[in-house]
Amino acid sequence: MDNLTVVKIGGNVIDDPAALKRFLAAFAGLPGAKLLIHGGGKVATQMAEKLGIQTTMVEGRRITDQPMLDVVTMVYGGLVNKQIVAKLQALEVNAIGMTGADAGTVLARKRPVKDIDYGMVGDIEEVDSGQIQFFLRQALTPVFAPITYSLAGDLLNTNADTMASAIAVDMCRHNTVTLIYCFEKKGVLSDPSDENSVINVLTPEQYAENKAAGTINKGMIPKLDNAFKALDSGVSKVIICHADELAMAVQQGAGTTLKK
Amino acid sequence: MDNLTVVKIGGNVIDDPAALKRFLAAFAGLPGAKLLIHGGGKVATQMAEKLGIQTTMVEGRRITDQPMLDVVTMVYGGLVNKQIVAKLQALEVNAIGMTGADAGTVLARKRPVKDIDYGMVGDIEEVDSGQIQFFLRQALTPVFAPITYSLAGDLLNTNADTMASAIAVDMCRHNTVTLIYCFEKKGVLSDPSDENSVINVLTPEQYAENKAAGTINKGMIPKLDNAFKALDSGVSKVIICHADELAMAVQQGAGTTLKK
Repeated sequence: MDNLTVVKIGGNVIDDPAALKRFLAAFAGLPGAKLLIHGGGKVATQMAEKLGIQTTMVEGRRITDQPMLDVVTMVYGGLVNKQIVAKLQALEVNAIGMTGADAGTVLARKRPVKDIDYGMVGDIEEVDSGQIQFFLRQALTPVFAPITYSLAGDLLNTNADTMASAIAVDMCRHNTVTLIYCFEKKGVLSDPSDENSVINVLTPEQYAENKAAGTINKGMIPKLDNAFKALDSGVSKVIICHADELAMAVQQGAGTTLKK
Repeated sequence: MDNLTVVKIGGNVIDDPAALKRFLAAFAGLPGAKLLIHGGGKVATQMAEKLGIQTTMVEGRRITDQPMLDVVTMVYGGLVNKQIVAKLQALEVNAIGMTGADAGTVLARKRPVKDIDYGMVGDIEEVDSGQIQFFLRQALTPVFAPITYSLAGDLLNTNADTMASAIAVDMCRHNTVTLIYCFEKKGVLSDPSDENSVINVLTPEQYAENKAAGTINKGMIPKLDNAFKALDSGVSKVIICHADELAMAVQQGAGTTLKK
């Protein structure tokens, strides 16, 4: 099987043009087939503010009403996605920007209303990895915005970390997959106040211990839950690293590598 | 050679959800390989207004400074493009939305400054019809937003009519191409005040006469110049018709057909 590197780049890097430029140069330099999933950053929230649309967050998640979905579609699916694609083209990476709706690659369904109505939020139902593989075979580099679609023809806002792991897992049908989460920290930290306390290798047991001790908390928990789930579902390697250390992380010289 | 229908849908239809829905159903029903290029409509201008960005027009053309390019990228490349893709997916058309930057399909260069500095506007240099053909062979239906890119990695605003004819002409390498411009009128009119004075067949000679007489004027002139140029450059048939009459126009039962 071919090697495929699936990279997720987080919102804070998207918000910083110099950091994004450095990251894209490193991404362009990765050998072999690769695929990028980007978050949206604060641009959507800022854009919504300028347009007088209120952002409602419940338990750290954005509630996506129709006006907010339009903003997310514009900013993530349009502005951020196309700027990344054009920059990758200049770096001689033949990027193709898409949402899950494009070529029917990531189908979702609107999250059922239980305690909270998240609005136009999608839970992933199916990844068409055959279609994505077809782009890779053509030497194209898919760049995904975190938006999916429903059979009813609605666009749906979807968590970028979840989308990255769902795509990585399904791509295991065709490839040996490495999944890399790039963000603004150097990896998973054993001491949240010490940027250099990176855990080099993290097992499920260590994760459970650190969670119990409270040293791994907040946003890291859903990220790591996603990551370990991907590892359990066929992904060969998961790395969590700083966006500036992507090249090193691929050589296992930086970041946190998750191990079963 | 296979038949390919290249359809351009104009801005006024994009602005009218009911008209867009009818148009997309007709487009979905077209037999054989097809490709859509959409304009942007007034949404970009309205969005710019809301964001306090001024729209400057010179000789009927939008001047595209960087803030306006960002709006165009968001609205055309994001909102409009992805909404069309999701709706086509629901109509069982496997649409893939793109700009010219995606998969390097339409390369342009920033228009040189002569009397007017149009800003971030692209003149098309090269269409990668081989790449587009590859999507068609995979039973995908490309949906283009009128945005291109430069080798320097900039996105560029590009006239949708021009983009439609440039793509149609280059696709003649692989297909027998019909190019259809859909808009809010029933075709080319011999009397601009009479909606039903549609010229069924228009030759270059009749076009010259009507232009001299002033019955064909304003926005129709660049549209028809583009259209006749496409016909001269290998496109088999060019039709100009109402968005509601696409299905009939394909059978030559509506609209204006251009003839050499």
